[in-house]
Amino acid sequence: MTHVRNETVELSLNQATTRPYPLTETAEAAMQAGIRHIGLWIEPVEEIGIVRTRRLLADTGLSVSSVCRAGFLADKGGADLRAALEGVKRALELSREVGSPMLTLIAGGLPAHDRSIQHAEVRLRAAIEEVEPYARDAGVRLALEPLHPLFVGTRSIVTTIAQALRVTADFPADTVGLLIDAYATSWDSRFHDDVLAAGPRIAGYQVSDFALPLPVPENMNGRLFPGDGEIDLAALTASIRHAGYSGPIEVEIFNEDIWKLPLETIIKRTVSSFNRYVGEPLNESERQPA
Amino acid sequence: MTHVRNETVELSLNQATTRPYPLTETAEAAMQAGIRHIGLWIEPVEEIGIVRTRRLLADTGLSVSSVCRAGFLADKGGADLRAALEGVKRALELSREVGSPMLTLIAGGLPAHDRSIQHAEVRLRAAIEEVEPYARDAGVRLALEPLHPLFVGTRSIVTTIAQALRVTADFPADTVGLLIDAYATSWDSRFHDDVLAAGPRIAGYQVSDFALPLPVPENMNGRLFPGDGEIDLAALTASIRHAGYSGPIEVEIFNEDIWKLPLETIIKRTVSSFNRYVGEPLNESERQPA
Repeated sequence: MTHVRNETVELSLNQATTRPYPLTETAEAAMQAGIRHIGLWIEPVEEIGIVRTRRLLADTGLSVSSVCRAGFLADKGGADLRAALEGVKRALELSREVGSPMLTLIAGGLPAHDRSIQHAEVRLRAAIEEVEPYARDAGVRLALEPLHPLFVGTRSIVTTIAQALRVTADFPADTVGLLIDAYATSWDSRFHDDVLAAGPRIAGYQVSDFALPLPVPENMNGRLFPGDGEIDLAALTASIRHAGYSGPIEVEIFNEDIWKLPLETIIKRTVSSFNRYVGEPLNESERQPA
Repeated sequence: MTHVRNETVELSLNQATTRPYPLTETAEAAMQAGIRHIGLWIEPVEEIGIVRTRRLLADTGLSVSSVCRAGFLADKGGADLRAALEGVKRALELSREVGSPMLTLIAGGLPAHDRSIQHAEVRLRAAIEEVEPYARDAGVRLALEPLHPLFVGTRSIVTTIAQALRVTADFPADTVGLLIDAYATSWDSRFHDDVLAAGPRIAGYQVSDFALPLPVPENMNGRLFPGDGEIDLAALTASIRHAGYSGPIEVEIFNEDIWKLPLETIIKRTVSSFNRYVGEPLNESERQPA
Protein backbone atom coordinates (compact mmCIF):
# COMPACT_ATOMS: atom_id res chain seq x y z
CA MET A 1 0.00 0.00 0.00
CA THR A 2 1.35 3.41 -0.93
CA HIS A 3 0.16 6.84 -0.08
CA VAL A 4 0.54 9.89 -2.23
CA ARG A 5 1.23 12.65 0.22
CA ASN A 6 -1.15 15.56 0.01
CA GLU A 7 1.24 18.44 0.54
CA THR A 8 -1.45 20.88 1.52
CA VAL A 9 -3.99 19.57 4.02
CA GLU A 10 -4.22 16.18 5.68
CA LEU A 11 -7.35 14.86 7.30
CA SER A 12 -7.22 13.13 10.65
CA LEU A 13 -10.21 11.19 11.87
CA ASN A 14 -10.93 12.02 15.48
CA GLN A 15 -12.30 8.92 17.11
CA ALA A 16 -15.22 10.83 18.62
CA THR A 17 -16.67 11.03 15.11
CA THR A 18 -17.12 7.23 15.07
CA ARG A 19 -17.63 6.90 18.83
CA PRO A 20 -19.95 3.84 18.86
CA TYR A 21 -17.46 1.71 16.91
CA PRO A 22 -14.44 -0.10 18.41
CA LEU A 23 -11.04 1.42 17.76
CA THR A 24 -9.95 -1.60 15.73
CA GLU A 25 -12.86 -1.26 13.32
CA THR A 26 -12.47 2.49 13.06
CA ALA A 27 -8.76 2.21 12.31
CA GLU A 28 -9.27 -0.44 9.65
CA ALA A 29 -12.06 1.50 7.98
CA ALA A 30 -10.05 4.71 8.10
CA MET A 31 -7.14 3.01 6.41
CA GLN A 32 -9.42 1.57 3.75
CA ALA A 33 -10.65 5.12 3.05
CA GLY A 34 -7.09 6.38 2.60
CA ILE A 35 -6.98 8.30 5.87
CA ARG A 36 -3.48 8.56 7.33
CA HIS A 37 -4.05 10.11 10.78
CA ILE A 38 -6.25 9.45 13.77
CA GLY A 39 -7.12 11.34 16.93
CA LEU A 40 -7.41 8.78 19.73
CA TRP A 41 -9.52 8.90 22.87
CA ILE A 42 -8.10 7.54 26.10
CA GLU A 43 -10.89 5.12 27.03
CA PRO A 44 -10.94 3.05 23.81
CA VAL A 45 -7.14 2.86 23.89
CA GLU A 46 -7.25 1.59 27.47
CA GLU A 47 -9.93 -0.88 26.45
CA ILE A 48 -7.64 -2.73 24.04
CA GLY A 49 -4.36 -1.75 25.73
CA ILE A 50 -1.23 0.02 24.58
CA VAL A 51 0.38 -3.00 22.89
CA ARG A 52 -2.63 -3.79 20.71
CA THR A 53 -3.10 -0.10 19.93
CA ARG A 54 0.49 0.22 18.75
CA ARG A 55 0.15 -2.91 16.65
CA LEU A 56 -3.08 -1.59 15.15
CA LEU A 57 -1.41 1.72 14.29
CA ALA A 58 1.52 -0.09 12.68
CA ASP A 59 -0.78 -2.40 10.71
CA THR A 60 -2.98 0.42 9.44
CA GLY A 61 -0.19 2.94 8.91
CA LEU A 62 -2.12 5.51 10.91
CA SER A 63 -0.21 8.17 12.76
CA VAL A 64 -1.71 9.65 15.91
CA SER A 65 -2.50 13.36 15.67
CA SER A 66 -3.75 13.76 19.24
CA VAL A 67 -4.98 12.02 22.33
CA CYS A 68 -8.23 13.34 23.79
CA ARG A 69 -8.50 14.33 26.61
CA ALA A 70 -7.42 15.17 30.13
CA GLY A 71 -7.65 18.06 32.55
CA PHE A 72 -10.83 19.41 34.17
CA LEU A 73 -8.58 21.15 36.67
CA ALA A 74 -9.87 24.71 37.08
CA ASP A 75 -12.79 23.81 39.32
CA LYS A 76 -10.83 21.57 41.68
CA GLY A 77 -8.76 21.78 44.83
CA GLY A 78 -7.36 19.36 47.41
CA ALA A 79 -7.71 15.65 46.79
CA ASP A 80 -9.89 16.15 43.70
CA LEU A 81 -7.19 18.28 42.13
CA ARG A 82 -4.46 15.77 43.04
CA ALA A 83 -6.46 13.00 41.36
CA ALA A 84 -7.07 15.12 38.26
CA LEU A 85 -3.38 16.01 38.00
CA GLU A 86 -2.45 12.33 38.27
CA GLY A 87 -4.95 11.70 35.48
CA VAL A 88 -3.14 14.22 33.27
CA LYS A 89 0.22 12.59 34.00
CA ARG A 90 -1.14 9.14 33.14
CA ALA A 91 -2.68 10.54 29.96
CA LEU A 92 0.69 12.08 29.02
CA GLU A 93 2.33 8.69 29.46
CA LEU A 94 -0.37 7.00 27.38
CA SER A 95 0.06 9.69 24.71
CA ARG A 96 3.80 9.04 24.60
CA GLU A 97 3.27 5.31 24.33
CA VAL A 98 0.94 5.60 21.34
CA GLY A 99 3.22 8.14 19.66
CA SER A 100 0.93 11.15 19.95
CA PRO A 101 2.59 14.55 19.63
CA MET A 102 0.03 16.09 21.95
CA LEU A 103 -2.59 15.62 24.63
CA THR A 104 -5.77 17.71 24.61
CA LEU A 105 -6.12 19.63 27.85
CA ILE A 106 -9.60 20.76 28.92
CA ALA A 107 -9.53 23.53 31.51
CA GLY A 108 -12.49 22.49 33.65
CA GLY A 109 -15.42 24.63 34.75
CA LEU A 110 -16.28 26.68 37.81
CA PRO A 111 -16.76 25.29 41.31
CA ALA A 112 -20.08 26.00 43.00
CA HIS A 113 -18.47 28.03 45.77
CA ASP A 114 -16.49 30.43 43.57
CA ARG A 115 -17.83 31.56 40.22
CA SER A 116 -14.89 33.83 39.44
CA ILE A 117 -13.26 33.01 36.11
CA GLN A 118 -10.21 35.00 37.22
CA HIS A 119 -9.72 32.79 40.29
CA ALA A 120 -10.21 29.70 38.15
CA GLU A 121 -7.52 30.93 35.74
CA VAL A 122 -5.10 31.22 38.67
CA ARG A 123 -5.83 27.63 39.68
CA LEU A 124 -5.52 26.46 36.08
CA ARG A 125 -2.13 28.10 35.62
CA ALA A 126 -0.84 26.52 38.83
CA ALA A 127 -2.10 23.12 37.69
CA ILE A 128 -0.44 23.44 34.27
CA GLU A 129 2.76 24.46 36.03
CA GLU A 130 2.68 21.15 37.86
CA VAL A 131 2.18 18.93 34.81
CA GLU A 132 4.28 20.88 32.32
CA PRO A 133 7.59 19.15 33.29
CA TYR A 134 5.91 15.77 32.75
CA ALA A 135 4.84 16.88 29.29
CA ARG A 136 8.40 17.90 28.54
CA ASP A 137 9.77 14.58 29.78
CA ALA A 138 7.20 12.62 27.80
CA GLY A 139 7.84 14.62 24.64
CA VAL A 140 4.10 15.23 24.44
CA ARG A 141 2.67 18.71 24.09
CA LEU A 142 -0.20 19.79 26.28
CA ALA A 143 -2.78 21.43 24.02
CA LEU A 144 -5.21 23.69 25.87
CA GLU A 145 -8.51 23.77 23.98
CA PRO A 146 -10.93 26.69 24.31
CA LEU A 147 -14.47 25.29 24.42
CA HIS A 148 -17.64 27.06 23.36
CA PRO A 149 -18.81 29.69 25.89
CA LEU A 150 -21.86 27.50 26.56
CA PHE A 151 -19.67 25.24 28.65
CA VAL A 152 -17.86 27.82 30.77
CA GLY A 153 -19.45 26.66 34.00
CA THR A 154 -19.41 22.93 33.40
CA ARG A 155 -16.40 22.08 31.25
CA SER A 156 -14.01 24.89 30.42
CA ILE A 157 -13.42 28.34 31.79
CA VAL A 158 -11.25 28.87 28.70
CA THR A 159 -13.58 30.01 25.93
CA THR A 160 -11.49 32.10 23.55
CA ILE A 161 -8.16 31.81 21.77
CA ALA A 162 -7.05 35.09 23.36
CA GLN A 163 -7.76 33.73 26.82
CA ALA A 164 -5.93 30.47 26.07
CA LEU A 165 -2.94 32.51 24.92
CA ARG A 166 -3.05 34.51 28.15
CA VAL A 167 -3.24 31.36 30.29
CA THR A 168 -0.38 29.64 28.46
CA ALA A 169 1.83 32.70 27.90
CA ASP A 170 4.34 31.88 30.64
CA PHE A 171 4.92 28.31 29.45
CA PRO A 172 7.20 27.23 26.61
CA ALA A 173 5.20 26.95 23.40
CA ASP A 174 6.75 23.58 22.59
CA THR A 175 5.32 21.97 25.73
CA VAL A 176 2.10 23.96 26.20
CA GLY A 177 0.24 24.75 23.01
CA LEU A 178 -3.32 25.40 21.87
CA LEU A 179 -5.84 23.13 20.24
CA ILE A 180 -8.15 25.29 18.17
CA ASP A 181 -11.58 23.87 17.43
CA ALA A 182 -13.52 25.66 14.72
CA TYR A 183 -16.91 24.79 16.22
CA ALA A 184 -15.95 26.29 19.58
CA THR A 185 -14.34 29.49 18.31
CA SER A 186 -15.74 30.46 14.89
CA TRP A 187 -18.17 32.96 16.52
CA ASP A 188 -15.23 35.04 17.77
CA SER A 189 -14.71 38.31 15.91
CA ARG A 190 -11.06 38.05 16.96
CA PHE A 191 -10.58 34.56 15.49
CA HIS A 192 -8.32 35.52 12.62
CA ASP A 193 -6.23 38.03 14.60
CA ASP A 194 -5.85 35.71 17.58
CA VAL A 195 -4.93 32.72 15.42
CA LEU A 196 -2.16 34.77 13.87
CA ALA A 197 -1.06 35.85 17.35
CA ALA A 198 -1.04 32.20 18.43
CA GLY A 199 1.33 31.27 15.60
CA PRO A 200 3.72 28.51 16.72
CA ARG A 201 1.65 27.86 19.82
CA ILE A 202 -1.00 26.18 17.65
CA ALA A 203 -0.62 22.48 18.42
CA GLY A 204 -3.68 21.23 16.61
CA TYR A 205 -6.83 22.17 14.76
CA GLN A 206 -10.24 20.48 14.69
CA VAL A 207 -13.21 21.05 12.44
CA SER A 208 -16.94 20.33 12.37
CA ASP A 209 -19.92 22.52 11.57
CA PHE A 210 -22.44 24.50 13.63
CA ALA A 211 -26.17 25.09 13.34
CA LEU A 212 -29.06 25.89 15.66
CA PRO A 213 -30.89 24.52 17.46
CA LEU A 214 -28.50 22.50 19.58
CA PRO A 215 -30.05 19.18 20.58
CA VAL A 216 -31.21 18.09 24.02
CA PRO A 217 -30.45 16.61 26.44
CA GLU A 218 -26.79 17.06 25.47
CA ASN A 219 -26.28 20.46 23.84
CA MET A 220 -22.72 19.36 22.95
CA ASN A 221 -23.90 16.81 20.42
CA GLY A 222 -25.07 19.19 17.71
CA ARG A 223 -21.87 19.10 15.68
CA LEU A 224 -22.26 18.54 11.95
CA PHE A 225 -20.17 17.42 9.02
CA PRO A 226 -18.20 20.28 7.42
CA GLY A 227 -20.48 22.13 5.02
CA ASP A 228 -23.72 21.15 6.76
CA GLY A 229 -23.75 24.23 9.01
CA GLU A 230 -22.89 27.90 8.97
CA ILE A 231 -19.12 28.01 9.61
CA ASP A 232 -16.87 29.25 6.83
CA LEU A 233 -14.32 26.51 7.41
CA ALA A 234 -12.28 27.45 4.36
CA ALA A 235 -11.65 30.93 5.77
CA LEU A 236 -10.86 29.69 9.26
CA THR A 237 -8.55 27.01 7.91
CA ALA A 238 -6.75 29.55 5.74
CA SER A 239 -5.96 31.59 8.85
CA ILE A 240 -4.75 28.53 10.74
CA ARG A 241 -2.39 27.68 7.89
CA HIS A 242 -1.35 31.30 7.48
CA ALA A 243 -0.38 31.24 11.15
CA GLY A 244 2.06 28.45 10.32
CA TYR A 245 0.18 25.33 11.34
CA SER A 246 0.81 22.54 8.83
CA GLY A 247 -0.17 19.41 10.76
CA PRO A 248 -3.16 17.17 10.21
CA ILE A 249 -6.66 18.60 10.67
CA GLU A 250 -9.00 16.52 12.77
CA VAL A 251 -12.67 16.11 11.99
CA GLU A 252 -14.26 15.79 15.44
CA ILE A 253 -18.04 15.42 15.46
CA PHE A 254 -20.38 14.77 18.38
CA ASN A 255 -23.81 13.94 17.00
CA GLU A 256 -26.26 11.21 18.02
CA ASP A 257 -27.77 11.01 14.55
CA ILE A 258 -24.40 10.65 12.87
CA TRP A 259 -23.37 8.01 15.41
CA LYS A 260 -26.34 5.91 14.26
CA LEU A 261 -24.92 5.66 10.74
CA PRO A 262 -22.85 2.67 9.54
CA LEU A 263 -19.13 3.14 10.21
CA GLU A 264 -18.24 3.24 6.52
CA THR A 265 -20.88 5.89 5.87
CA ILE A 266 -19.55 8.12 8.63
CA ILE A 267 -16.02 7.82 7.31
CA LYS A 268 -17.03 8.34 3.71
CA ARG A 269 -18.93 11.50 4.59
CA THR A 270 -16.07 12.67 6.79
CA VAL A 271 -13.64 12.39 3.88
CA SER A 272 -15.93 13.93 1.28
CA SER A 273 -17.04 16.86 3.45
CA PHE A 274 -13.48 17.50 4.54
CA ASN A 275 -12.20 17.49 0.97
CA ARG A 276 -14.96 19.78 -0.20
CA TYR A 277 -15.10 22.31 2.65
CA VAL A 278 -11.77 22.15 4.45
CA GLY A 279 -8.91 20.70 2.45
CA GLU A 280 -7.91 20.77 -1.15
CA PRO A 281 -9.71 17.90 -2.88
CA LEU A 282 -7.57 14.81 -3.31
CA ASN A 283 -7.36 13.04 -6.64
CA GLU A 284 -9.19 9.76 -6.74
CA SER A 285 -5.81 7.98 -6.96
CA GLU A 286 -4.65 9.75 -3.82
CA ARG A 287 -7.76 8.93 -1.84
CA GLN A 288 -7.73 5.20 -2.40
CA PRO A 289 -5.06 2.88 -1.05
CA ALA A 290 -3.07 1.24 -3.83
CA MET B 1 -49.48 56.04 46.35
CA THR B 2 -45.95 56.85 47.46
CA HIS B 3 -42.71 55.14 46.65
CA VAL B 4 -39.70 54.96 48.90
CA ARG B 5 -36.78 55.27 46.56
CA ASN B 6 -34.24 52.51 46.81
CA GLU B 7 -31.03 54.49 46.44
CA THR B 8 -28.95 51.50 45.43
CA VAL B 9 -30.52 49.22 42.84
CA GLU B 10 -33.86 49.51 41.08
CA LEU B 11 -35.57 46.65 39.34
CA SER B 12 -37.16 47.11 35.96
CA LEU B 13 -39.48 44.46 34.60
CA ASN B 14 -38.66 43.71 30.99
CA GLN B 15 -41.86 42.85 29.25
CA ALA B 16 -40.36 39.72 27.71
CA THR B 17 -40.49 38.17 31.17
CA THR B 18 -44.31 38.28 31.10
CA ARG B 19 -44.59 37.91 27.34
CA PRO B 20 -47.95 36.07 27.16
CA TYR B 21 -49.75 38.79 29.12
CA PRO B 22 -51.06 42.06 27.66
CA LEU B 23 -49.09 45.19 28.43
CA THR B 24 -51.99 46.66 30.40
CA GLU B 25 -52.15 43.66 32.76
CA THR B 26 -48.37 43.52 33.11
CA ALA B 27 -48.13 47.21 33.96
CA GLU B 28 -50.92 47.03 36.54
CA ALA B 29 -49.45 43.94 38.18
CA ALA B 30 -45.96 45.47 38.19
CA MET B 31 -47.30 48.57 39.91
CA GLN B 32 -49.12 46.45 42.48
CA ALA B 33 -45.80 44.70 43.23
CA GLY B 34 -44.07 48.04 43.81
CA ILE B 35 -42.04 47.93 40.60
CA ARG B 36 -41.24 51.40 39.26
CA HIS B 37 -39.69 50.69 35.83
CA ILE B 38 -40.59 48.67 32.77
CA GLY B 39 -38.75 47.59 29.64
CA LEU B 40 -41.23 47.76 26.76
CA TRP B 41 -41.33 45.74 23.56
CA ILE B 42 -42.37 47.39 20.34
CA GLU B 43 -45.14 45.00 19.26
CA PRO B 44 -47.28 45.18 22.43
CA VAL B 45 -46.94 48.97 22.44
CA GLU B 46 -48.10 49.13 18.84
CA GLU B 47 -50.96 46.82 19.72
CA ILE B 48 -52.53 49.30 22.15
CA GLY B 49 -51.03 52.43 20.57
CA ILE B 50 -48.86 55.25 21.86
CA VAL B 51 -51.66 57.23 23.50
CA ARG B 52 -52.94 54.32 25.57
CA THR B 53 -49.39 53.31 26.44
CA ARG B 54 -48.59 56.80 27.73
CA ARG B 55 -51.79 56.87 29.73
CA LEU B 56 -50.99 53.44 31.18
CA LEU B 57 -47.51 54.60 32.17
CA ALA B 58 -48.92 57.72 33.80
CA ASP B 59 -51.59 55.73 35.64
CA THR B 60 -49.17 53.12 36.93
CA GLY B 61 -46.29 55.52 37.60
CA LEU B 62 -43.96 53.25 35.64
CA SER B 63 -40.98 54.81 33.90
CA VAL B 64 -39.66 53.18 30.76
CA SER B 65 -36.10 51.85 31.07
CA SER B 66 -35.80 50.65 27.48
CA VAL B 67 -37.60 49.75 24.31
CA CYS B 68 -36.74 46.38 22.80
CA ARG B 69 -35.72 46.05 20.00
CA ALA B 70 -34.62 47.08 16.53
CA GLY B 71 -31.72 46.47 14.20
CA PHE B 72 -30.81 43.18 12.50
CA LEU B 73 -28.69 45.20 10.11
CA ALA B 74 -25.36 43.41 9.76
CA ASP B 75 -26.60 40.72 7.41
CA LYS B 76 -28.44 43.04 5.05
CA GLY B 77 -27.86 45.11 1.98
CA GLY B 78 -29.95 46.90 -0.62
CA ALA B 79 -33.70 47.10 -0.10
CA ASP B 80 -33.62 44.81 2.93
CA LEU B 81 -31.16 47.12 4.63
CA ARG B 82 -33.22 50.20 3.73
CA ALA B 83 -36.29 48.60 5.28
CA ALA B 84 -34.38 47.62 8.42
CA LEU B 85 -32.98 51.14 8.79
CA GLU B 86 -36.47 52.58 8.45
CA GLY B 87 -37.52 50.15 11.15
CA VAL B 88 -34.85 51.51 13.47
CA LYS B 89 -35.95 55.09 12.78
CA ARG B 90 -39.58 54.23 13.52
CA ALA B 91 -38.52 52.43 16.71
CA LEU B 92 -36.53 55.51 17.78
CA GLU B 93 -39.64 57.62 17.29
CA LEU B 94 -41.76 55.16 19.26
CA SER B 95 -39.11 55.13 22.00
CA ARG B 96 -39.21 58.90 22.20
CA GLU B 97 -43.00 58.91 22.36
CA VAL B 98 -43.13 56.52 25.30
CA GLY B 99 -40.33 58.36 27.10
CA SER B 100 -37.68 55.67 26.82
CA PRO B 101 -34.08 56.81 27.29
CA MET B 102 -32.86 54.09 24.93
CA LEU B 103 -33.63 51.65 22.17
CA THR B 104 -32.03 48.20 22.16
CA LEU B 105 -30.10 47.65 18.96
CA ILE B 106 -29.46 44.07 17.82
CA ALA B 107 -26.63 43.79 15.30
CA GLY B 108 -28.02 41.07 13.06
CA GLY B 109 -26.30 37.88 11.93
CA LEU B 110 -24.32 36.81 8.90
CA PRO B 111 -25.66 36.63 5.36
CA ALA B 112 -25.38 33.28 3.60
CA HIS B 113 -23.07 34.62 0.94
CA ASP B 114 -20.47 36.18 3.23
CA ARG B 115 -19.64 34.62 6.57
CA SER B 116 -17.00 37.18 7.48
CA ILE B 117 -17.67 38.84 10.83
CA GLN B 118 -15.22 41.58 9.85
CA HIS B 119 -17.24 42.46 6.75
CA ALA B 120 -20.43 42.38 8.80
CA GLU B 121 -18.89 44.81 11.31
CA VAL B 122 -18.18 47.22 8.46
CA ARG B 123 -21.80 47.04 7.34
CA LEU B 124 -23.02 47.44 10.91
CA ARG B 125 -20.91 50.55 11.53
CA ALA B 126 -22.19 52.12 8.30
CA ALA B 127 -25.77 51.35 9.32
CA ILE B 128 -25.31 52.87 12.78
CA GLU B 129 -23.80 55.93 11.14
CA GLU B 130 -27.02 56.38 9.22
CA VAL B 131 -29.38 56.13 12.20
CA GLU B 132 -27.22 57.88 14.81
CA PRO B 133 -28.42 61.41 13.86
CA TYR B 134 -32.01 60.22 14.27
CA ALA B 135 -31.17 58.93 17.75
CA ARG B 136 -29.66 62.30 18.61
CA ASP B 137 -32.72 64.17 17.31
CA ALA B 138 -35.08 61.84 19.19
CA GLY B 139 -33.09 62.11 22.40
CA VAL B 140 -33.05 58.32 22.53
CA ARG B 141 -29.83 56.40 22.93
CA LEU B 142 -29.13 53.45 20.68
CA ALA B 143 -27.93 50.59 22.92
CA LEU B 144 -25.99 47.91 21.06
CA GLU B 145 -26.44 44.60 22.85
CA PRO B 146 -23.91 41.78 22.53
CA LEU B 147 -25.81 38.49 22.30
CA HIS B 148 -24.56 35.06 23.32
CA PRO B 149 -22.06 33.58 20.81
CA LEU B 150 -24.65 30.91 20.01
CA PHE B 151 -26.51 33.45 17.92
CA VAL B 152 -23.63 34.92 15.92
CA GLY B 153 -24.91 33.59 12.61
CA THR B 154 -28.62 34.16 13.13
CA ARG B 155 -29.07 37.22 15.34
CA SER B 156 -25.97 39.14 16.29
CA ILE B 157 -22.43 39.25 15.04
CA VAL B 158 -21.67 41.26 18.19
CA THR B 159 -20.97 38.71 20.92
CA THR B 160 -18.66 40.42 23.41
CA ILE B 161 -18.51 43.71 25.27
CA ALA B 162 -15.07 44.37 23.80
CA GLN B 163 -16.43 43.96 20.29
CA ALA B 164 -19.40 46.22 21.01
CA LEU B 165 -16.98 48.85 22.28
CA ARG B 166 -14.93 48.51 19.11
CA VAL B 167 -18.00 48.85 16.88
CA THR B 168 -19.34 51.88 18.75
CA ALA B 169 -16.00 53.62 19.45
CA ASP B 170 -16.38 56.26 16.75
CA PHE B 171 -19.86 57.33 17.85
CA PRO B 172 -20.67 59.70 20.73
CA ALA B 173 -21.32 57.69 23.89
CA ASP B 174 -24.46 59.68 24.65
CA THR B 175 -26.16 58.59 21.43
CA VAL B 176 -24.66 55.10 20.93
CA GLY B 177 -24.23 53.08 24.09
CA LEU B 178 -24.15 49.44 25.15
CA LEU B 179 -26.81 47.24 26.66
CA ILE B 180 -25.06 44.58 28.72
CA ASP B 181 -26.99 41.39 29.32
CA ALA B 182 -25.56 39.14 32.01
CA TYR B 183 -26.89 35.95 30.40
CA ALA B 184 -25.17 36.76 27.11
CA THR B 185 -21.81 37.86 28.51
CA SER B 186 -21.14 36.24 31.89
CA TRP B 187 -18.99 33.52 30.29
CA ASP B 188 -16.47 36.14 29.15
CA SER B 189 -13.21 36.13 31.10
CA ARG B 190 -12.90 39.81 30.16
CA PHE B 191 -16.33 40.76 31.54
CA HIS B 192 -15.11 42.80 34.50
CA ASP B 193 -12.28 44.54 32.62
CA ASP B 194 -14.44 45.32 29.61
CA VAL B 195 -17.32 46.63 31.72
CA LEU B 196 -14.93 49.04 33.40
CA ALA B 197 -13.60 50.03 29.98
CA ALA B 198 -17.17 50.62 28.81
CA GLY B 199 -17.84 53.03 31.70
CA PRO B 200 -20.17 55.83 30.57
CA ARG B 201 -21.03 53.94 27.40
CA ILE B 202 -23.16 51.52 29.44
CA ALA B 203 -26.73 52.46 28.59
CA GLY B 204 -28.48 49.58 30.30
CA TYR B 205 -28.04 46.28 32.07
CA GLN B 206 -30.21 43.15 32.00
CA VAL B 207 -30.15 40.07 34.19
CA SER B 208 -31.41 36.49 34.15
CA ASP B 209 -29.69 33.21 34.91
CA PHE B 210 -28.05 30.47 32.83
CA ALA B 211 -28.01 26.68 33.04
CA LEU B 212 -27.58 23.76 30.65
CA PRO B 213 -29.15 22.20 28.78
CA LEU B 214 -30.72 24.90 26.67
CA PRO B 215 -34.22 23.89 25.55
CA VAL B 216 -35.40 22.98 22.04
CA PRO B 217 -36.66 24.01 19.61
CA GLU B 218 -35.70 27.54 20.70
CA ASN B 219 -32.32 27.51 22.43
CA MET B 220 -32.90 31.16 23.39
CA ASN B 221 -35.67 30.31 25.82
CA GLY B 222 -33.55 28.74 28.55
CA ARG B 223 -33.24 31.86 30.67
CA LEU B 224 -33.96 31.47 34.36
CA PHE B 225 -34.84 33.65 37.33
CA PRO B 226 -31.77 35.13 39.04
CA GLY B 227 -30.33 32.56 41.42
CA ASP B 228 -31.74 29.54 39.57
CA GLY B 229 -28.64 29.11 37.41
CA GLU B 230 -24.89 29.42 37.54
CA ILE B 231 -24.21 33.14 37.03
CA ASP B 232 -22.72 35.13 39.90
CA LEU B 233 -25.06 38.06 39.31
CA ALA B 234 -23.91 39.87 42.44
CA ALA B 235 -20.33 40.00 41.15
CA LEU B 236 -21.36 41.05 37.63
CA THR B 237 -23.70 43.71 38.98
CA ALA B 238 -20.99 45.06 41.27
CA SER B 239 -18.77 45.62 38.22
CA ILE B 240 -21.57 47.31 36.30
CA ARG B 241 -22.15 49.68 39.20
CA HIS B 242 -18.42 50.18 39.73
CA ALA B 243 -18.25 51.24 36.08
CA GLY B 244 -20.67 54.03 36.92
CA TYR B 245 -24.01 52.66 35.77
CA SER B 246 -26.73 53.62 38.23
CA GLY B 247 -29.92 53.17 36.20
CA PRO B 248 -32.59 50.52 36.60
CA ILE B 249 -31.65 46.87 36.08
CA GLU B 250 -34.00 44.90 33.86
CA VAL B 251 -34.96 41.32 34.54
CA GLU B 252 -35.41 39.87 31.05
CA ILE B 253 -36.32 36.20 30.90
CA PHE B 254 -37.24 34.04 27.90
CA ASN B 255 -38.59 30.74 29.17
CA GLU B 256 -41.61 28.73 28.01
CA ASP B 257 -42.13 27.19 31.45
CA ILE B 258 -42.04 30.54 33.20
CA TRP B 259 -44.43 32.00 30.62
CA LYS B 260 -46.97 29.33 31.64
CA LEU B 261 -47.11 30.69 35.19
CA PRO B 262 -49.80 33.15 36.35
CA LEU B 263 -48.78 36.77 35.81
CA GLU B 264 -48.66 37.55 39.52
CA THR B 265 -46.43 34.53 40.16
CA ILE B 266 -43.95 35.60 37.49
CA ILE B 267 -43.78 39.10 38.91
CA LYS B 268 -43.51 37.93 42.50
CA ARG B 269 -40.64 35.61 41.63
CA THR B 270 -39.00 38.33 39.54
CA VAL B 271 -39.02 40.69 42.51
CA SER B 272 -37.89 38.15 45.09
CA SER B 273 -35.09 36.66 42.96
CA PHE B 274 -33.92 40.14 41.98
CA ASN B 275 -33.84 41.32 45.57
CA ARG B 276 -32.01 38.23 46.73
CA TYR B 277 -29.45 37.79 43.94
CA VAL B 278 -29.08 41.15 42.23
CA GLY B 279 -30.15 44.14 44.28
CA GLU B 280 -30.09 45.02 47.91
CA PRO B 281 -33.24 43.61 49.49
CA LEU B 282 -36.03 46.14 49.83
CA ASN B 283 -37.89 46.49 53.07
CA GLU B 284 -41.42 45.20 52.98
CA SER B 285 -42.68 48.80 53.27
CA GLU B 286 -40.61 49.78 50.24
CA ARG B 287 -41.81 46.91 48.13
CA GLN B 288 -45.53 47.48 48.57
CA PRO B 289 -47.37 50.50 47.26
CA ALA B 290 -48.77 52.62 50.06
